Amino acid sequence: MKRIPFSKNNAKYTRSLHLKKYRDKFNKFVAEGDKICREMLSTAHKSIEFCVARKEWIELHGDLLSQTEIPVATIDELTLRSVSAFKTPNQVLIVADKMDFPFPASLSDQWYIYLDGIQDPGNVGTILRIADWFGFGAVFCGPDTADIYNHKVIQASMGAFLRVPHFSRPLEEVLSALNWNKPVYGASMEGQNIFDLSFGPAGILVIGNEGQGIRPETKEMISQTVGIPRGKEGGAESLNAAIATGILCAAIRQFADLS
Amino acid sequence: MKRIPFSKNNAKYTRSLHLKKYRDKFNKFVAEGDKICREMLSTAHKSIEFCVARKEWIELHGDLLSQTEIPVATIDELTLRSVSAFKTPNQVLIVADKMDFPFPASLSDQWYIYLDGIQDPGNVGTILRIADWFGFGAVFCGPDTADIYNHKVIQASMGAFLRVPHFSRPLEEVLSALNWNKPVYGASMEGQNIFDLSFGPAGILVIGNEGQGIRPETKEMISQTVGIPRGKEGGAESLNAAIATGILCAAIRQFADLS
Repeated sequence: MKRIPFSKNNAKYTRSLHLKKYRDKFNKFVAEGDKICREMLSTAHKSIEFCVARKEWIELHGDLLSQTEIPVATIDELTLRSVSAFKTPNQVLIVADKMDFPFPASLSDQWYIYLDGIQDPGNVGTILRIADWFGFGAVFCGPDTADIYNHKVIQASMGAFLRVPHFSRPLEEVLSALNWNKPVYGASMEGQNIFDLSFGPAGILVIGNEGQGIRPETKEMISQTVGIPRGKEGGAESLNAAIATGILCAAIRQFADLS
Repeated sequence: MKRIPFSKNNAKYTRSLHLKKYRDKFNKFVAEGDKICREMLSTAHKSIEFCVARKEWIELHGDLLSQTEIPVATIDELTLRSVSAFKTPNQVLIVADKMDFPFPASLSDQWYIYLDGIQDPGNVGTILRIADWFGFGAVFCGPDTADIYNHKVIQASMGAFLRVPHFSRPLEEVLSALNWNKPVYGASMEGQNIFDLSFGPAGILVIGNEGQGIRPETKEMISQTVGIPRGKEGGAESLNAAIATGILCAAIRQFADLS
């Protein structure tokens, strides 16, 4: 570890990264909190620009830090609170390069998720975690989808953004870059019961916006709509988008791993 | 509708209901936001103590209000913000009696969810919504589970708390009150693959705490543990508790509705 001071300019720069505009400009983002920062120090330390932490945290995790050449600044509680995106102060935050995943090879047999305008960052983060659990090959983010590097996405993903390749790209570009000739499934309230279908080793699952569903221009690229039947005595109007994604991915995985 | 003034005492009383202590004392809660308030005015107006809204909202929804004898106060934005539990101000809030569901009849064939210390209110609300969608008979909340009438639970449930019977009761009391002799399933990372099992028309699904899982004393009452297999190439440590609940409930419903 390389001790550095935490200057006012550092603070200003860190705060600027809470806005997508500056994350895009600098190609950096902020990760906050003990768990994700320890994970990044273990597995992604080359991407780290600097780490800022309370004195106690640095003492406790000296081993993680001492193995690397990462610049580390000690910070007091008030300053940490002033640069944090969260109301409750964390012990540590890291500024790092955004992840740089290679685009999936076309012709490889994989399952992917495409987010067609998922706006709630908690949903996007939770969906990354689902994709990570079930081993999906990538998450593609269409227009109007919450930014993967939004602090709430990072938090809800529980580190999944470090492992699941993700790309901001509209569906037609995804299909053409992958040279796609496999099915494209669209989640829909009126879709066919997912549990009545069987699945091969490759497909794209499209999840639509929380309120509007899949947009018309995306619908044209879908080969089959799939849904989750409501219980006989069910009352809710709909399921949350991340819950629906979890159920669809679980149902798909039953088949895809066997084929 | 009956026009009332919104006094300082009304404001103080409303704010007090953001604390569980006062919700329990008065047996009341606060529902906020256009969608849930419209739903309550349509379907649960007898439980409403008063409704507080911006002038514009009252004009727009005069029809809903005029059919009832509900006390309605006009409120300005600043005052509404001062009594709201949310950072972004809503147009309307309602103070109402907590729901009063009859305890399920013992010997009836139903599926239930038991929450063994789910602490995140967003998870509890989302699980209510899942129970509502799949037509589960009730959600039982064990010790250390977030209060159903917490504003974040109410918000995430999307109105499901109005329809899904819910009770704060430890599992041993639930089992004895229901005279239960059917299976009790416990969600667990090491549980048997839920997709390899079949289910009858009645059961209890126990969901453990986000970090600790099911507590030891609850485990003793479980007849079978169930889990969701990770994908062959999956990386995540775990799934979010509400996502896991959604997948388990969907898998169970496939069988329960057919039997």
